[in-house]
Amino acid sequence: MENMESISKILKDVLEDITPGKREKEELNKLSKTIIDGLYTIIQTEGLCDIVEDIVQVGSTARDTHLKNDYDIDIFIRFKRGVDREVLKETILNIGRRVIENLGGTSWIEYAEHPYVSGRIGKYDIDIVPCYKIGWNEGIISAVDRTPLHNQFVKDILKSKHLNNDIRLLKKFLKGVGIYGSDLKTKGFSGYLCELLVIHYGGFINTLKNAQKWKIGEKIVLDEIFQIYGIGRDYRFSDFDHPLVVYDPVDLKRNVAAALSKENFCRFIFYSRQFLENPSKEFFYNYHRKLTERVNSRDRGALLTLKIERDSNIVDDIIYPQMEKLQKSINKLLIENDFQILDCEIYATKDACYLSWEFLVWEFPNVKVRVGPPVFNRKVRDFVKKYPKHFIKDCRVCAYVERKYKDVYQLFEDIVSGKLKNRIKHPKYVSPVNGKVYRDIFVNRYMSIMRIK
Amino acid sequence: MENMESISKILKDVLEDITPGKREKEELNKLSKTIIDGLYTIIQTEGLCDIVEDIVQVGSTARDTHLKNDYDIDIFIRFKRGVDREVLKETILNIGRRVIENLGGTSWIEYAEHPYVSGRIGKYDIDIVPCYKIGWNEGIISAVDRTPLHNQFVKDILKSKHLNNDIRLLKKFLKGVGIYGSDLKTKGFSGYLCELLVIHYGGFINTLKNAQKWKIGEKIVLDEIFQIYGIGRDYRFSDFDHPLVVYDPVDLKRNVAAALSKENFCRFIFYSRQFLENPSKEFFYNYHRKLTERVNSRDRGALLTLKIERDSNIVDDIIYPQMEKLQKSINKLLIENDFQILDCEIYATKDACYLSWEFLVWEFPNVKVRVGPPVFNRKVRDFVKKYPKHFIKDCRVCAYVERKYKDVYQLFEDIVSGKLKNRIKHPKYVSPVNGKVYRDIFVNRYMSIMRIK
Repeated sequence: MENMESISKILKDVLEDITPGKREKEELNKLSKTIIDGLYTIIQTEGLCDIVEDIVQVGSTARDTHLKNDYDIDIFIRFKRGVDREVLKETILNIGRRVIENLGGTSWIEYAEHPYVSGRIGKYDIDIVPCYKIGWNEGIISAVDRTPLHNQFVKDILKSKHLNNDIRLLKKFLKGVGIYGSDLKTKGFSGYLCELLVIHYGGFINTLKNAQKWKIGEKIVLDEIFQIYGIGRDYRFSDFDHPLVVYDPVDLKRNVAAALSKENFCRFIFYSRQFLENPSKEFFYNYHRKLTERVNSRDRGALLTLKIERDSNIVDDIIYPQMEKLQKSINKLLIENDFQILDCEIYATKDACYLSWEFLVWEFPNVKVRVGPPVFNRKVRDFVKKYPKHFIKDCRVCAYVERKYKDVYQLFEDIVSGKLKNRIKHPKYVSPVNGKVYRDIFVNRYMSIMRIK
Repeated sequence: MENMESISKILKDVLEDITPGKREKEELNKLSKTIIDGLYTIIQTEGLCDIVEDIVQVGSTARDTHLKNDYDIDIFIRFKRGVDREVLKETILNIGRRVIENLGGTSWIEYAEHPYVSGRIGKYDIDIVPCYKIGWNEGIISAVDRTPLHNQFVKDILKSKHLNNDIRLLKKFLKGVGIYGSDLKTKGFSGYLCELLVIHYGGFINTLKNAQKWKIGEKIVLDEIFQIYGIGRDYRFSDFDHPLVVYDPVDLKRNVAAALSKENFCRFIFYSRQFLENPSKEFFYNYHRKLTERVNSRDRGALLTLKIERDSNIVDDIIYPQMEKLQKSINKLLIENDFQILDCEIYATKDACYLSWEFLVWEFPNVKVRVGPPVFNRKVRDFVKKYPKHFIKDCRVCAYVERKYKDVYQLFEDIVSGKLKNRIKHPKYVSPVNGKVYRDIFVNRYMSIMRIK
């Protein structure tokens, strides 16, 4: 009870801090409308009405679920099915850039699955993105075709259920604990996922409370889905091998939480419980950083950082999974060689990838026990021929052999020289060959700083 | 085939070396007879016929299965059931010592379950032991009552099956590979077990060959048992939880191989195979020592020896099991503290016990990961309260905590100071408190020497 009182005080304070003001919202909406009007004008004057279906503002600023000082304006131009992709591209580049520049802004082209226009007008970041108009539960044609439907779904519901502030709280909470964002670096919760969870559980605190009952593979189906699609509770939804499954009301074969890692799924459950038990504003403000600082104020094992040059044209969503893959494959090799890992991290700046390790055990005498076959086994013959320094232990033939790597730095030397090319993965944009090895340095992803032992 | 030829040459050579000569045997038998006659004379003149049943020579020298230069003469005086133990004791001390000293020898009293007379006449070691006369498959009254029956069983069989040399070969082979002897230090094969195995398999080489098919818990019943006891193949013999079970023809509820450790059971299988595949005289002569030397010509981890003073009155059969118990309990503590053991040994001299360790990992940074409950669990609350430096890994709450022992020497300091009295066993005659810890020293049981790194 006491907690609940203090919680409502905390949430009130946080909301005051994160809710955009009335003027902030009006100004943003006015600029959105101006851009959309500008786009329609060009479309009409240039006779493009037969290929363009409509123009919609999307994103959290469109649904009023954004945090204060978020000046992102996302405009989607929906083309009719059947319009050639080339036409899509030409049209968007032509009219998108013109509108932004007519309003005194600067613009450029960005590339995702297909190109779109990005720009800046004053403090506002504008994206003008082409897509195809599709219906509910219909297959997509281009990658972002579902976005306007997401927008419509959430907006419609929030008209009657006033959960906008609860959504803001969940987003801020997840930011605070470091798991907001569905990019491949963060592997956390997307904004849309936050909206669906708060809608499903009817509020921020209820979401946190319900998360306490989650288990790995938790499945969530919004009530609205049964109404929209006219299906019963016995409907067989698709199976996913993800820790959390939230069926997309716009496409039942899609899991909105697909990007969420098991680790972050567990972190959410954990931090939710921590917050409910010991409510504090701290959770909403850089909590993960404070936690990392506290956790790392301790004695360290041997630290090692591998720095690899990065082509700054390659985006995080490609770089991070490749760093991860490389670290995993190096970890396997480290474990094979008996080096015990206490902690490891990846972090990328604009022009470098950092893979860091902390070792509990990093050097050995030059001897290793190789465990061979049971004495009852025929393979004993070959084993003793191969390893002359054998002995019997636990009914098996074992042997002392020389250790390949006496310390962990030797192993990393062979990694950066390319000697171990066949033993570890060499991802295209994060190849360890010619990387640099630094001792006594650990790069922490959350703190984003280099630590010297 | 080639192996078989070389094997017979090897066996011939070894036999030449280990078989006692005709004169050696005659001389020994003559002395035995003299002693027995002497004993009978005293028994008659002193009117002890009503308590003594008979006198028998036992042991391998009595059955002609001994190795050359074995000058042990074992004489058993069998008393009638019902004779008081005190009378047994007095009688044996009185007449035993007298006979040896009449023959110009020296004698003294030894203590096992009950006292017996030991003595020396020239190069001969004489034991004169009292026991009760019991029948086959009858319960024993004193500990050694079965010995004369073992003697009779083996002698009777060897009259028709001439396997004496094969038994000698097996004994010598087991000595060579370091597993001959059923004492609690060696935990190997007794002489009687060698005799039964060779009788069962019909020879030395056949024993080695058949051992290749052994599995843990192997059960051996001699054909003679079925004849003697008139039982069928479906007879339910007693169960034993030993690696090798050889039913004693003299007492079916006894396993002759009870003292054999699993490790030595496996060693026998292994060395047998090694010998059959690469026959060499080497196996019969200090092979275990050569092997130990070869195996230990390698880089060493951190060495540590704990020296504990020994009361020289306490026999090996008590000291070794206690050393073993202590080492096992220290090993448990070492593993709990993450120190990785590469090798460990025990060895006792007349006045000291040595417990040695070789460590693969012996020092750490002052940090340890404590793995806590799954995030889904109620116990999370207490864990995070207790350990503030917590984090989430593999769906569990974990925490960094300080390490109790940063290096292995600290831990041993606490052992010898008595601080860890509640954490490890303190056997009566091998207490680590006030023991001395030596770095860089390892005492090898087979080589019986101190090794400095």
